[in-house]
Amino acid sequence: MANADIAQRKAMAADWFAQAQQRLIDEMERIERDCPGPFSPEAAAPGRFELKDWKRTNHDGAEGGGGRMAILRGRVFEKMGAHTSVVQGTFAPEFAKQIPGAEEDPRFWAAGVSVIAHPWNPTVPTAHMNTRFVVTSKAWFGGGGDLTPVLDRRRNQEDLDSQAFHAAMRGACERHAAPYDKYKAWCDEYFWLKHRNEPRGIGGIFYDYLEGADWDADFAFTRDVGTSFTRAYADIVAANCAQPWSEADREEQLVRRGRYVEYNLLYDRGTIFGLKTGGNVDSILSSMPPTVRWP
Amino acid sequence: MANADIAQRKAMAADWFAQAQQRLIDEMERIERDCPGPFSPEAAAPGRFELKDWKRTNHDGAEGGGGRMAILRGRVFEKMGAHTSVVQGTFAPEFAKQIPGAEEDPRFWAAGVSVIAHPWNPTVPTAHMNTRFVVTSKAWFGGGGDLTPVLDRRRNQEDLDSQAFHAAMRGACERHAAPYDKYKAWCDEYFWLKHRNEPRGIGGIFYDYLEGADWDADFAFTRDVGTSFTRAYADIVAANCAQPWSEADREEQLVRRGRYVEYNLLYDRGTIFGLKTGGNVDSILSSMPPTVRWP
Repeated sequence: MANADIAQRKAMAADWFAQAQQRLIDEMERIERDCPGPFSPEAAAPGRFELKDWKRTNHDGAEGGGGRMAILRGRVFEKMGAHTSVVQGTFAPEFAKQIPGAEEDPRFWAAGVSVIAHPWNPTVPTAHMNTRFVVTSKAWFGGGGDLTPVLDRRRNQEDLDSQAFHAAMRGACERHAAPYDKYKAWCDEYFWLKHRNEPRGIGGIFYDYLEGADWDADFAFTRDVGTSFTRAYADIVAANCAQPWSEADREEQLVRRGRYVEYNLLYDRGTIFGLKTGGNVDSILSSMPPTVRWP
Repeated sequence: MANADIAQRKAMAADWFAQAQQRLIDEMERIERDCPGPFSPEAAAPGRFELKDWKRTNHDGAEGGGGRMAILRGRVFEKMGAHTSVVQGTFAPEFAKQIPGAEEDPRFWAAGVSVIAHPWNPTVPTAHMNTRFVVTSKAWFGGGGDLTPVLDRRRNQEDLDSQAFHAAMRGACERHAAPYDKYKAWCDEYFWLKHRNEPRGIGGIFYDYLEGADWDADFAFTRDVGTSFTRAYADIVAANCAQPWSEADREEQLVRRGRYVEYNLLYDRGTIFGLKTGGNVDSILSSMPPTVRWP
């Protein structure tokens, strides 16, 4: 592909990830304002995202791009991160092997947006979304969204939230002729806690190495995953955020969050890869739940 | 070595680990009774250890030994685990390579005792000790103890607790002509959080693959590590447990515990190895702090 084309695609993708972040910020701040409560006694006024730009240094000391962290600590969301990054550099030799197209040429460029929400109210599920565009000597999209209801009585496929979330992810796939069943199964496989022999949540979709014949179509699908996630999750939060909860629900939520920590530190490729390759620790670990219990 | 000799050594080691567990239980329950407070409002009477035996199934379905968990949830210790295990089986081929002496013959036997204490009072340091005897076609001891003061103002080498803990570990080494400086440096290297570029605590000692010419001497050293740890930590708890603490201290403690979780799930060989090879999840993860914050 001509260099001018790939440069344009990088710019378009990076631009979109920034837009997706802004939409999420707008939508979630609206929920912070509109939700009638109940709120945690620890929370005060409606929360606003705090923005923080960061710069990355490549392992060889070169400038490596950076990103914009957006963190909300509010009365609906105990903690929510919605971060973008646009980074470039070269892979260290031990990592180049693991990355498609990097063995021939270790240079890479990657941009993405990543969201994780930890609501106060245990009846509101935790949610995660990530979409990314990675360029080595190949160029591909990856991403997905998944939902984790934190109460046992709600963490099942029959729950209305589960059905709504799956319908949204299915819709994004079907509008772009993406293989929904494959991506749904990939999500179930990816978010599996092997040591506990249990899934992280109720699933969603996961895809990677998407490098089809039609870049515009792949990009349109990736955008749709982002917008569908934001809309579906906003609806799920709104539908649950006025429900009362008990101390027992809160305890169950804090213990379930422990599973989220176990998943992220034991299995999540992005987290482990980022932490072991000098990524931005604050940004990577902002996905960690604010308060967690292993009783 | 004659089979009868190795059988006797296994029995002696397993016996000692059970004794070390019992000493720890006695000592820590005494502290639970004698400490005058202040106690957390969440804690009531002096805590007692709950004992729970568990059995292990080898990856090939054979009986694989088991262990005895001892967990204390008290008024001095928010959570403390002191567990023994005596396990045997065969390593799966992908792990045999990583274990000395297992490539020739995948059979193994291992016994050990493992302790981790999470006190309520943030002025009382967190502590960890493990000693083990592993038999493949080789046979070696490993172990160590380390201390993690959770308040920045106390987590330094000049603090009296740090000095007392180091002196105890040095004593155990010197009484048995073990190379203290080497084991101290090994501990600093092992308990290093690479992604944060910081140590876990103030250190201690760590040793592994100890297979000297004199088994009795190696065993005596390993026993001394256990008894020295228990005595030193009991003194440190007693010296601090009546000190008052603030809400800010408690918050600092909960955040510092997050580093402990990061360490255990990202780096600790025993934890990761255990979780990925079908170990006892309850026992392995009982090392996790009871309440943790990533604010």
